[in-house]
Amino acid sequence: MTDQTTNVADLRRAVAEFVDARDWRQFHNPKNLAMSIAIEAAELMEHFQWLDLPVSGRIGESPRDIGDIREELADVLCYALSLANVLEIDVSTALHEKLVKNNAKYPAERFRGRFK
Amino acid sequence: MTDQTTNVADLRRAVAEFVDARDWRQFHNPKNLAMSIAIEAAELMEHFQWLDLPVSGRIGESPRDIGDIREELADVLCYALSLANVLEIDVSTALHEKLVKNNAKYPAERFRGRFK
Amino acid sequence: MTDQTTNVADLRRAVAEFVDARDWRQFHNPKNLAMSIAIEAAELMEHFQWLDLPVSGRIGESPRDIGDIREELADVLCYALSLANVLEIDVSTALHEKLVKNNAKYPAERFRGRFK
Amino acid sequence: MTDQTTNVADLRRAVAEFVDARDWRQFHNPKNLAMSIAIEAAELMEHFQWLDLPVSGRIGESPRDIGDIREELADVLCYALSLANVLEIDVSTALHEKLVKNNAKYPAERFRGRFK
Repeated sequence: MTDQTTNVADLRRAVAEFVDARDWRQFHNPKNLAMSIAIEAAELMEHFQWLDLPVSGRIGESPRDIGDIREELADVLCYALSLANVLEIDVSTALHEKLVKNNAKYPAERFRGRFK
Repeated sequence: MTDQTTNVADLRRAVAEFVDARDWRQFHNPKNLAMSIAIEAAELMEHFQWLDLPVSGRIGESPRDIGDIREELADVLCYALSLANVLEIDVSTALHEKLVKNNAKYPAERFRGRFK
Repeated sequence: MTDQTTNVADLRRAVAEFVDARDWRQFHNPKNLAMSIAIEAAELMEHFQWLDLPVSGRIGESPRDIGDIREELADVLCYALSLANVLEIDVSTALHEKLVKNNAKYPAERFRGRFK
Repeated sequence: MTDQTTNVADLRRAVAEFVDARDWRQFHNPKNLAMSIAIEAAELMEHFQWLDLPVSGRIGESPRDIGDIREELADVLCYALSLANVLEIDVSTALHEKLVKNNAKYPAERFRGRFK
């Protein structure tokens, strides 16, 4: 089960099965899930709280940090996919459409190396 | 390009191409990306700020709200996948391993309908 | 030292002394402090993650929860005041001006019992 | 009304009057307020999203940025004080106690110039 061989629907189904096996759909309303994404995002952010940017770029060299960060990122994705499940949002379509929109908003030749 | 037919590596590649076409890798260090996930998560959360939980559960009935929420969710995923790209984290494996760990931590029969 | 007898400058000074005694001003740049406020805000939010709104309203009845929440709120304020120190923002003036602005934006008679 | 001449109870009262004039106490339950603090904290953070740390340290030189940041910081404080109002938390005491606790956890001589 790697990113090369897993389709997005498989990931969503794995999350849905975990939730349903515990009858947790009742807690997974959109408001709670949006909060949960933000909470896990903050736990992810905590690993970089006091680092300057170049040091944060080398965090991949620390197996222990990477292990923790992988887990926090998984938590973010888990709640994000559960929200997609609850609201029946196709995330591949949503992501694709957002990239198309951002392509128009930030033309590559004009925003090369600058973000505003 | 739907969740049924898109594998996770395809989504990651689409994000990487958007970033690279603008030479934005220089801004996409892990610290900035973790902040960006949290910022987008908060924008997502804003749609539910004052709603009570049952009302938040019916937000899917409002096409306009759903349109905005889809975009915010896409933004969260976009930065999450960019972080995975930068740190070379396989998100399918990470998510799978986290579910295995949570399965052990929250046995289904014991946590049915309760979260603690 | 209670809210009745403490002025805001006293609180700010207590935070500044804590930071300076450790020579932590070097870490307390505005970007790190903004992240830190968000991290502590998420820890505060975690106490309400799965609660419905009426239950969250009765959390004051649980001395243990209130003890934890007091600490998280103190952390939010600590970093918020440190940011005010670093950027030399007078928070009483800033808060007062924001209330004046919001008074104009949300006239009391029109927004009574509704937020939009 | 400056930090030198304003006591914390005055600030809290100004926030309570704003809320009560609109009959908004019904929305200001602890869960919604904790979300609101996090949302405003993210808006504050957005001003530093792509800046490196030294640049973020010079943001005080830009009157326009500072104006926006003052407002976001005021929003954070506004919700933080409203939460204190709802939960009847004395923030001066809470902050003072947290600093005492952190003084024990991070002895100044041992943590000078380092945060772990």
